[in-house]
Amino acid sequence: MNDYYTQDVHGPYETIDIGRLELEEGGVLEHCMLAVATHGTLNAARDNVILIPTWYSGTSKIMEQAYIGPGRALDPARYFIVVVNQIGSGLSISPSNAPAAIAGARFPKVRIGDDVRAQHRLLTEHFGIERLALVVGGSMGAQQTYEWAVRYPDMVERAAPIAGTACNTEHDFLFAETLSEAITTDPGFDDGGYTGPEAVAAGLKRHAKLWTVMGWSTEFFRAGRHRALGFEDMQAFVDQFMTGYFGPMDPNNLLCMAWKWQRGDVGRHTEGRLPEALGRITARTYVMPISHDMFFPPSDCLAEQQLIAGSEFRPLVSIDGHLALFGTDPNWMSDLDRNLKELLSLPA
Amino acid sequence: MNDYYTQDVHGPYETIDIGRLELEEGGVLEHCMLAVATHGTLNAARDNVILIPTWYSGTSKIMEQAYIGPGRALDPARYFIVVVNQIGSGLSISPSNAPAAIAGARFPKVRIGDDVRAQHRLLTEHFGIERLALVVGGSMGAQQTYEWAVRYPDMVERAAPIAGTACNTEHDFLFAETLSEAITTDPGFDDGGYTGPEAVAAGLKRHAKLWTVMGWSTEFFRAGRHRALGFEDMQAFVDQFMTGYFGPMDPNNLLCMAWKWQRGDVGRHTEGRLPEALGRITARTYVMPISHDMFFPPSDCLAEQQLIAGSEFRPLVSIDGHLALFGTDPNWMSDLDRNLKELLSLPA
Repeated sequence: MNDYYTQDVHGPYETIDIGRLELEEGGVLEHCMLAVATHGTLNAARDNVILIPTWYSGTSKIMEQAYIGPGRALDPARYFIVVVNQIGSGLSISPSNAPAAIAGARFPKVRIGDDVRAQHRLLTEHFGIERLALVVGGSMGAQQTYEWAVRYPDMVERAAPIAGTACNTEHDFLFAETLSEAITTDPGFDDGGYTGPEAVAAGLKRHAKLWTVMGWSTEFFRAGRHRALGFEDMQAFVDQFMTGYFGPMDPNNLLCMAWKWQRGDVGRHTEGRLPEALGRITARTYVMPISHDMFFPPSDCLAEQQLIAGSEFRPLVSIDGHLALFGTDPNWMSDLDRNLKELLSLPA
Repeated sequence: MNDYYTQDVHGPYETIDIGRLELEEGGVLEHCMLAVATHGTLNAARDNVILIPTWYSGTSKIMEQAYIGPGRALDPARYFIVVVNQIGSGLSISPSNAPAAIAGARFPKVRIGDDVRAQHRLLTEHFGIERLALVVGGSMGAQQTYEWAVRYPDMVERAAPIAGTACNTEHDFLFAETLSEAITTDPGFDDGGYTGPEAVAAGLKRHAKLWTVMGWSTEFFRAGRHRALGFEDMQAFVDQFMTGYFGPMDPNNLLCMAWKWQRGDVGRHTEGRLPEALGRITARTYVMPISHDMFFPPSDCLAEQQLIAGSEFRPLVSIDGHLALFGTDPNWMSDLDRNLKELLSLPA
């Protein structure tokens, strides 16, 4: 058991068994356990719900710490906010915590659509929720947000995909492949049979370096933002911050999420026809890329936004790039909050 | 002997022994062999010389094929054009062709300054040249161009660093580190003792994937430029074009060049004070980054250009990103030619 994935580090969250989930790729999760953090109270009309799916390597904790709070757009005083950790996150069912028969490298392949169906069952059956005031998520959370808006248009009133796409690009697929290969080529990975993350430390560090190159931006480093965050130089930033962040994570969990990330595509609902899939969206949608994102760049997000009726393109400026998602840039956070508040103020 | 590095593939070029070269890092090349391709004729005044140093993995052949020609800025009818393959290129002295005592992993560390001193000796002693109408190079060729302009200001009349910097950034250093690690972590690399590139095929392929992610741009792939170049999809582009390109290269050669690339810094002449070093430049200088370059981005180049008296910032637009250097974008090539012609028309 990896003690990184615990209530101590990521709590509080509740683990809810939504039952048997048949997966798109053919596998089955007999007990699909979802780790769920909620904030605020479900009102009598059951119409104040905000759903937040999580991103690669992230959990409900970062959403709690950086995005949710009184006076914020995601305000627990007004909304019942449900953060669902994605399958493979290490908190919900994952290679690192699954029953032996599907543990580790034996964990079945999971797709974005599986997460969204699992979340749908959780919301409807466990919480009795039929309407979502907003689905909002960053990166893989954006992929799930798009999937929600396409798959359950009658349920999603507003959608805010941040720094992510509805159909993953070939470029992004390859970037994620380099991340996975950084891990799998470590001899300590042992085809997924490693004893713990420490056995794959070298691979996880290379994975962290690739995230450092692509996750921030050239402007971030030129401006010395890494030093402003408290690290002496790039070496310290890689060793302490980035490797410190990824190092404790379970390699098979990361690979599970990366595989899913690579294949995110709402066009699966329409035999590959993306315009038709995005045409199903009825949610008020703000598409919010980050200006300096190196792998979910604004240009890719704009191409999709133009296929969504009544949507708006709201790029948010930050030289922190994709990992502005971490909450490192206060200006970006307040821009995001302003846009989310505006979106939430629109009639459903 | 690696038969990739031959006259058949990269010729014609002449191999010239410039004698003993003591290296900045303490090593010695007893016979520093430089592979040199020349085009055109040295005039009587010896003032029509253009020097072109080469980039990482590139050789004089790509310069001949894509940059030099009648009616072009680099016109052999007007200029005596000297293309010098960098140390480690596989044509000039390199791990793959050095005497046994310094072959392969035993090859000494080489710096940009070593290349430039070697080229200086070649030009002055072998060719009897004292003035350079232009030094022009891309990427590591730009690093050498800056080094020339700072080290030998009285000799360089014009300088055109394309898609490169005078002082390598921390971000770029880390990117190059991931490239090197893709190779060195292949078990077949065997600490540099491999039998040939084919033994390191997996590492060279990962290296090619990283180049694919960072070398072009997200816009390049979104626009389907890889398909326009004749490849069915990303997989084919990676397998056939990018891996096909890097696969035959000698791993120790690539590592030699990457180490040098990482540490390019004209500030070494002035105890780290970059403004003072760039202040030594008297050449008419056009700084020409590529708009969509992901690791030598225009912003990093602009910061340096502003430190060079009388220089001009001439960013060139191409969604092909850094590897527009390959000559894949005719519009970019003609923009470059126009700028080089303008630069060459300025009084020295």
